[in-house]
Amino acid sequence: MSAWRIGQILPSRSVSVLKGGNVWFFRGGAQDPAGYLVSGVRSMLIPSQLSPSLPQSIALSGVSERRRGLAQEKMTENGVFSRDKVLTIDTMNPTVKNVEYAVRGPIVQRAMQIEKELREGVKKPFTEVIKANIGDAHAMGQQPITFFRQVLALCSYPELLNENMFPEDAKNRAQRILQACGGGSVGAYSASQGIDCVRQDVARYIERRDGGVPCDPDNVYLTTGASDGIVTMLKLLVCGEGASRTGVMISIPQYPLYSAALAELGAVQVNYYLNEEKCWSMDLSELESSLAEARKHCNPKALCIINPGNPTGQVQSRQCIEDVIRFAAKERLFLMADEVYQDNVYAEGCQFHSFKKVLFELGPEYSDNVELASFHSTSKCYMGECGFRGGYMEVINMDAEVQAQLSKLVSVRLCPPIPGQALMDLVVNSPQPGEPSHITFMKALGQAPDMFYCMKLLEETGICLVPGSGFGQKDGTYHFRMTILPPTEKLKILLAKVKEFHQKFTQQYS
Amino acid sequence: MSAWRIGQILPSRSVSVLKGGNVWFFRGGAQDPAGYLVSGVRSMLIPSQLSPSLPQSIALSGVSERRRGLAQEKMTENGVFSRDKVLTIDTMNPTVKNVEYAVRGPIVQRAMQIEKELREGVKKPFTEVIKANIGDAHAMGQQPITFFRQVLALCSYPELLNENMFPEDAKNRAQRILQACGGGSVGAYSASQGIDCVRQDVARYIERRDGGVPCDPDNVYLTTGASDGIVTMLKLLVCGEGASRTGVMISIPQYPLYSAALAELGAVQVNYYLNEEKCWSMDLSELESSLAEARKHCNPKALCIINPGNPTGQVQSRQCIEDVIRFAAKERLFLMADEVYQDNVYAEGCQFHSFKKVLFELGPEYSDNVELASFHSTSKCYMGECGFRGGYMEVINMDAEVQAQLSKLVSVRLCPPIPGQALMDLVVNSPQPGEPSHITFMKALGQAPDMFYCMKLLEETGICLVPGSGFGQKDGTYHFRMTILPPTEKLKILLAKVKEFHQKFTQQYS
Repeated sequence: MSAWRIGQILPSRSVSVLKGGNVWFFRGGAQDPAGYLVSGVRSMLIPSQLSPSLPQSIALSGVSERRRGLAQEKMTENGVFSRDKVLTIDTMNPTVKNVEYAVRGPIVQRAMQIEKELREGVKKPFTEVIKANIGDAHAMGQQPITFFRQVLALCSYPELLNENMFPEDAKNRAQRILQACGGGSVGAYSASQGIDCVRQDVARYIERRDGGVPCDPDNVYLTTGASDGIVTMLKLLVCGEGASRTGVMISIPQYPLYSAALAELGAVQVNYYLNEEKCWSMDLSELESSLAEARKHCNPKALCIINPGNPTGQVQSRQCIEDVIRFAAKERLFLMADEVYQDNVYAEGCQFHSFKKVLFELGPEYSDNVELASFHSTSKCYMGECGFRGGYMEVINMDAEVQAQLSKLVSVRLCPPIPGQALMDLVVNSPQPGEPSHITFMKALGQAPDMFYCMKLLEETGICLVPGSGFGQKDGTYHFRMTILPPTEKLKILLAKVKEFHQKFTQQYS
Repeated sequence: MSAWRIGQILPSRSVSVLKGGNVWFFRGGAQDPAGYLVSGVRSMLIPSQLSPSLPQSIALSGVSERRRGLAQEKMTENGVFSRDKVLTIDTMNPTVKNVEYAVRGPIVQRAMQIEKELREGVKKPFTEVIKANIGDAHAMGQQPITFFRQVLALCSYPELLNENMFPEDAKNRAQRILQACGGGSVGAYSASQGIDCVRQDVARYIERRDGGVPCDPDNVYLTTGASDGIVTMLKLLVCGEGASRTGVMISIPQYPLYSAALAELGAVQVNYYLNEEKCWSMDLSELESSLAEARKHCNPKALCIINPGNPTGQVQSRQCIEDVIRFAAKERLFLMADEVYQDNVYAEGCQFHSFKKVLFELGPEYSDNVELASFHSTSKCYMGECGFRGGYMEVINMDAEVQAQLSKLVSVRLCPPIPGQALMDLVVNSPQPGEPSHITFMKALGQAPDMFYCMKLLEETGICLVPGSGFGQKDGTYHFRMTILPPTEKLKILLAKVKEFHQKFTQQYS
């Protein structure tokens, strides 16, 4: 029954965040006129107002209840013997139960239900649901880059190469990709690590990005979205039991894929908090104390960084990245750099520095030693092609025996989808941004004050956001996350509605 | 140093197998004129003749040695301090090390090397490598189905909808799929379970296939190839430690995805042997004794069946499926039916029966109770579109709470690739086979007599097969697996070469 409150937009501090596609609302400080929600509100409100419509109960209602009843009864209406399931919530893999993924969670499930209600003519205080919960640019009406889609169409149906309707460069690109495919078809498997020429293109892209720091295509693995690569790396890292169980350091707030994957692998999630007071920057002392604390009960082996941040949108400074690399070297941590937003830096004075580039600029003591895996994706960048599930990871200084194991592991799923590989090739070959379509994607689970806020906002205004609890936040603070992909006109309406709602909400619960 | 021998083709018994796209060589019996390999050959030959070129050493050679040396020396040429890696073969996840996947293994790695040598002008007793190791139809020169690729091109680049070059039905289909995509783009994420209308089409397809047995689209999950669904289901099932660790029954020979996934999950692989004497059928007494034995040291919870078989090609009889279902019901096992080859049954008198259909024909005692997950894929069937990584699974009688966990789990990877989902839709909507392109995909690891046989065959003839050890076989028996996707003319050459080699080989080592 602790007091809690909802923060508000502080544009002067959130500009880089706003431009990055996410709005991560700042917790109100002393200078913050936002009202407080009285203590006890949580326990007062949730049972009476929220529970009946909470998607947690939705998800498990209906059939669930019937089936559970049936299984207990042992005798169905037909007079047939019925028994308990082999696979039940009690007998299933407990690590899966521990997985929490703020995707397609309660708020979004309710949003889909509301959309259905609107279609059925149910009267609401709004006429459409605006989804600012997931960075799905195309779903928000942004158009794909014509050139990329032309190449993909040509790859899918090479007879189109004979048509005059396509530009020559699109044809050339398609022919190059097709020639690299088995039998000249995107329907063939590729090498498990990915198509050779795509990996070469990725390597050249990385070299350009990093001012000539060399990239070996053999260290590039194409993946099914960045998530696939991240989970694969974590799989390699996690082992041990009890106090020697692998710990993995992740930022709070984090992208919930990390917590989900760590829960599934049974690894120890070691949280370090981003410094909200300093625009969500990484704090060396926080890293140190977090690590020291973790070493008392597990074996921290890896440090994950999301830069530019998700959901916070911060872009870490070069100095900060240096500090982190020195820290990782000193403390013997494997670095995982989630850099999928590297092309989504807009704020003035802000610049993206890749971990690899900084690593190499620190000299051979670091560049010959510090182990690093970095991740990229086709779902972000200026094209936001989420549906194709393309991505890559680059591994640096990985032990060769481990890398052989990595190559074996990725061979189990045969190969990433070929259209996604083709798209990855187009992304790394087309540095000129077409349309800005910053993509971020996340949703929320759980029932917390920020969940209540978001649910209420959805019910009253049709605006779909994500509660901060899905990303992690300091105890006693509450946030929400909003993507700003809707077109400008819609965004204006959205922000006006949020403002109005927020004022009313803070008034009502202060 | 036990005696061992290579079997030979017995066409009268292998016809359904042959037609199914795989040739699984039968172990020679008393009636088998194939020669024996003298005892001791294994230990005699492998060190002297095989080891130098064995891809296991290839995989770990070169950089590996250098790096390991460097890590041990602590001082590089540049005078820079160098240290051991954080992530080494000793500190990495041991379950990953246990993964064995007969894909892109030693034989195939050597085949790729030989292809390179041929290109460089190295003289060999053959001029090309014929790959009969992996069922990659398009890579073997088979053409994709025009209609499907037209629809995919239209989905990728909807501007083509305005062109007159596409048939109306292709346009209609593309429009239907696009309308179901967020923002009308295949670049948007779909629901994690898959696009609604695709799941509905899959459900109708299943109902047609099963003579009207109802299928609820809510029980259909689209996947990134069938492998994805199988691994996801295993993830849900596996838990416990020691004697209560989950055991999963799989056939031997099996498709190595199962052994790989079980190793990674740390589950107990419970083998049951298919009856080679009876065309690789399932044997109830074998299931019973295998289960009884397994119960002494683990908790067997699931029974996996691959039907039609992979790599053995057998099609289980209706009676056999009934027996298996009754067995699963009696012994309380969750059934996993890998039915990805359901459209690849060619032998006269042979018919595919889905586990679901038989389950429902057995009446409510079974159809209301036995838990079943079945799997299908776009990589097999008549189109063999491997590169798109499309597939689905249907779950039957799954506990609703567990199903909610399943839905949560699949949401972590956001959604399967949309082009693969679109293709799955086309597969289930196009029951008339276009081109026969049975796809199977597997490769081999390890160093065994059959490995030696296959390596020698590759070196001497350029024919690339898979040793039976990659799929499992009874101790003291040896097989190889050959896909028969090459065009008929090439297949004739292939079979003549195999015959000649086999005679020479058995003569030499008898």
